[in-house]
Formats: sequence, structure tokens, C-alpha cells
Amino acid sequence: MDFDDAHLARLNDNPLYRALGIRVGRVAAGAAQATLEPTAAACWPLPTQPHGGVLFTLVDTTTAWAAMSHGNEGDGCVTVDCSIQYPAPARDGPFTCAATTARRSGRTVFMRAEVLDAHGVPVALAQATFRLLKARPAS
Amino acid sequence: MDFDDAHLARLNDNPLYRALGIRVGRVAAGAAQATLEPTAAACWPLPTQPHGGVLFTLVDTTTAWAAMSHGNEGDGCVTVDCSIQYPAPARDGPFTCAATTARRSGRTVFMRAEVLDAHGVPVALAQATFRLLKARPAS
Amino acid sequence: MDFDDAHLARLNDNPLYRALGIRVGRVAAGAAQATLEPTAAACWPLPTQPHGGVLFTLVDTTTAWAAMSHGNEGDGCVTVDCSIQYPAPARDGPFTCAATTARRSGRTVFMRAEVLDAHGVPVALAQATFRLLKARPAS
Amino acid sequence: MDFDDAHLARLNDNPLYRALGIRVGRVAAGAAQATLEPTAAACWPLPTQPHGGVLFTLVDTTTAWAAMSHGNEGDGCVTVDCSIQYPAPARDGPFTCAATTARRSGRTVFMRAEVLDAHGVPVALAQATFRLLKARPAS
Repeated sequence: MDFDDAHLARLNDNPLYRALGIRVGRVAAGAAQATLEPTAAACWPLPTQPHGGVLFTLVDTTTAWAAMSHGNEGDGCVTVDCSIQYPAPARDGPFTCAATTARRSGRTVFMRAEVLDAHGVPVALAQATFRLLKARPAS
Repeated sequence: MDFDDAHLARLNDNPLYRALGIRVGRVAAGAAQATLEPTAAACWPLPTQPHGGVLFTLVDTTTAWAAMSHGNEGDGCVTVDCSIQYPAPARDGPFTCAATTARRSGRTVFMRAEVLDAHGVPVALAQATFRLLKARPAS
Repeated sequence: MDFDDAHLARLNDNPLYRALGIRVGRVAAGAAQATLEPTAAACWPLPTQPHGGVLFTLVDTTTAWAAMSHGNEGDGCVTVDCSIQYPAPARDGPFTCAATTARRSGRTVFMRAEVLDAHGVPVALAQATFRLLKARPAS
Repeated sequence: MDFDDAHLARLNDNPLYRALGIRVGRVAAGAAQATLEPTAAACWPLPTQPHGGVLFTLVDTTTAWAAMSHGNEGDGCVTVDCSIQYPAPARDGPFTCAATTARRSGRTVFMRAEVLDAHGVPVALAQATFRLLKARPAS
């Protein structure tokens, strides 16, 4: 299931992404891209750098949508676990996250992601495992 | 360096914690505790469950302050990496995070954390590595 | 399914454990313990310290058997992923690994483990995710 | 520091690699490649599949030598931590591991690795953090 522009617009219109500055730009064929233009609230304790938890949220959300694109409309997915590295300080945004599927095995999906700063320097690297959930039939 | 009540009050008065609902309750001797009473913005896409990135932010912040307590006033620390598992849906808050030091080796600190829901069920488990940074001498 | 002494004796009689010096001592109720008395082959490049891969193998094997004890006889399990930290050099054996179940959710099992040296110092910490597999019915 | 053929030959002539079937093929400029033709001892409990700990040892060793190539002759390095995923069963060897440097920050090196089977299917994915150690001056 790929996400068309209307779907992405609805997806991006939520209070969490607005609070942090996240916008998902593309979800298709097991991959996704998103950007972070961090809000003031997202940049603490350093006034111009997004908190590590905000970078993780960007990674988790981008990989989750990429994993979801393996399913059908209405299916869900849960993060089983995720490992993240912070190889460099996240000083210069906007930040872009690219997530790709390393392998799908049944309903388990293995994802990789990286977040680059405005100069192309990796500021976060992650690998995550997701489980796809079937949509419940309407009652 | 332990954190007294005034220090904690200053620490908790920041826009990121307010946006998500985080409050650090204790930082002493390499350990820390914090709570999450998730805001509406923190609970997306499910209206009553904090996003996995919000739980991670709780973990990262609690472990970071616990790691910081090994240093002196004015020192900093950076998250090198962190692995998080989500063993159960985070349905019933408030959520409490407890972080402990597994081992300190020079300026590298190895931390473990768990987040429990209101019933004591673990909803996130993590292990993280931090590097302590020396305060720069005032010029 | 707990493992009695005869089961453990059969389990321990294999070429991998013999090559490295692993012996599983107890598997019951979602927990397990094992010891490593590293062989000469296991200690490279430092002649008296087990290789990080050998410590990981000890962790993976101990957590896998602990996870397996949630199933029935003949069931299998696979490691989905594992994160390991090495907080201190592994100088003084024998090393003991204790694995516990943090949470079982359906056929997904979330495990934690630590490896202590002869003085009780943690030399490896891990968290791992497993999937339980049903035994195939005999044809 | 790149490794010439004589250096690699000395490096590969050790009891751990022989016990498991590991051979390092190239170490240069922050990257490395190695192969695993698993021995009988390495394939347990399934007679034709290397144990997850053996795949991890392949990953740890390949990433460590890649990280080492950032240093000078005589320097060392230690694995701080490593996260590994197992996206598919490791049925068809030989297996090849490729490790690359994501980022070097001072003496901390952030590495990524993947292990492919004979058909190019990823059977292990990993990210690891290393610390480079300076050679001690000769006394």
C-alpha cells in the first residue's frame, strides 16, 4: 500500500508531529522519507539541537510508515524494538530521515534508517523490528 | 552530584517535558526516576497511548540524568546509543521510568532502564551507553 | 517446560559448546543460567580473555533456552535480534550468564541477560527478542 | 592503516577463526570484508546452519578490523556495544560479511555491517560502536 498525497496530508496533520516538527514526505514500497524542522519545544536542553528522543521519534515514525506500506489499508504495526546510534551532534537542520526495508519475513519486518543533517552528515542510525497487525474485520 | 529539589524544579521547567508530560523525580548516585503523564500531543496515533518515541524520550532523559549524576556540576553527557524494546502496549498511565548504572568505565557509562505502567507491567526496556563530557573552564 | 538433568546433559553434549567452553546449568520457568570456562580457541586475540563473539554466544544460548522453556517439548525458537553491551574487559573467569524473561507477548518473548566474571563484575549486558515456533506435527 | 596480504595471513591464522570457519579477506580505509564457511562445530543445533553466536562473531570481528584500520599499527580497539538482527535463516553458505564506517568521532567509531548468504539474502544486520585504544609506548 503506497500513500498518496491526500493520505500523507491527513497523516501529517496530527498534534505530535506539529509539537516536534516532523513531516512525512513519501511512503511507498517498503521505504519512507520524512523531515524534521525542529520546533523550539523539540530543542532542549540545547536551544538549537533536537533532543535525542525527538530524533528517535523521527526514526520510529519513518520506519513504522515504511513497514506499514507492506500491509493493506487499515492494517497496523507495532515497534518490537529499535537500536539507535548518535554518531554526531545534530546541529544543522533541517534533518532528513530515510527508512528502508532490509527484509520482510512473514509479519516481521526488519528496517534500517538514517538521519542526515543539512550537510549530509549522519546524526542518527537505527535498525528496528516491527510486527504487522491485520486489520480487524468491521463488525 | 545529586540533584536537590530546587535543581529538579529548574530541570523540569522546560518546553520539551511540558509538551510530552515528563517529570524527573529523583537523580542521585547513578540512578534516576521519572514519570510520564502523557499530554494529548504525546498520544498519537492512538488517543490514549503515548507514542513509542515519547516512551523513548522518557527513557533517554531518565538515563541521561542518572549518567550525569556521575559527573560534577556543569559537566555534560551525550547518548552514544540506545536499544529499546516494547514488550507490551502502553495503555494505562501514569508511566514510571527507573534508570540504573550497570557500570561506569572512565567516561563511558552503561545504563539500564525500564518503564512500567500503572499496574507494574513493563512497557519499555532499554540499555544505553553515554559519554560524560567535562565542563569547559570558564573563560 | 523445565529441563531435567538428563535433558541438560544431552543439551550440553554438542560440538559448539565444547569448542567454546559453554555449559548450561539450569533452564526453568522462563529463566536460565549457564557458565563459560573459555577454551584456548575461545580466547583470541587476548590469550586469557574470551572473544566478544564468545560472550555473545553464551548470552544467545542462555536466553534462547530460557525463552524455549515457555514452549512445549519439540517447539523451537529463533532469535529475532539482540543488543549487547561490554561494560568491562572479561579477564577473570569462569563467567556466569543469567537470563530472565522480561515479558512474553504471544509467541514473542523479551529477554534480558547479564554475564558476570568471577568477582561479580558485569562483563556483558544484553536484551534480546525471540519468536517461539510450534513443533510441526509428526507426519 | 590498511592490511596487506601478509598481515591478513597472520591475522587469519588463529584458533578461534579456525574453530568457526572465519576468514578476513580485506581491511582498508575503515571497511572490511570477511567470509564464513562454517565448520561442523559452528553449526549447532541445526547441522547445516551456523549458530547465531557464530554469525555475531563474524560481524564483531569484521567490524572490529574495519574500525582498527582507522588507527595506527599497534593500536587496539574494544567493542562498546553491538545490536544484531537476524532477518532470515542462515541456510546457504558461504556467508560474506561487509562492514563499513558510518562515522568516526574522535576515538569512537560507529560501524554498520551486513551478512549475506550465497544468494545475496541478508541473514544478519548489525550496528556497533567501538573505542579505539592508543598503543602503549614501548618501555
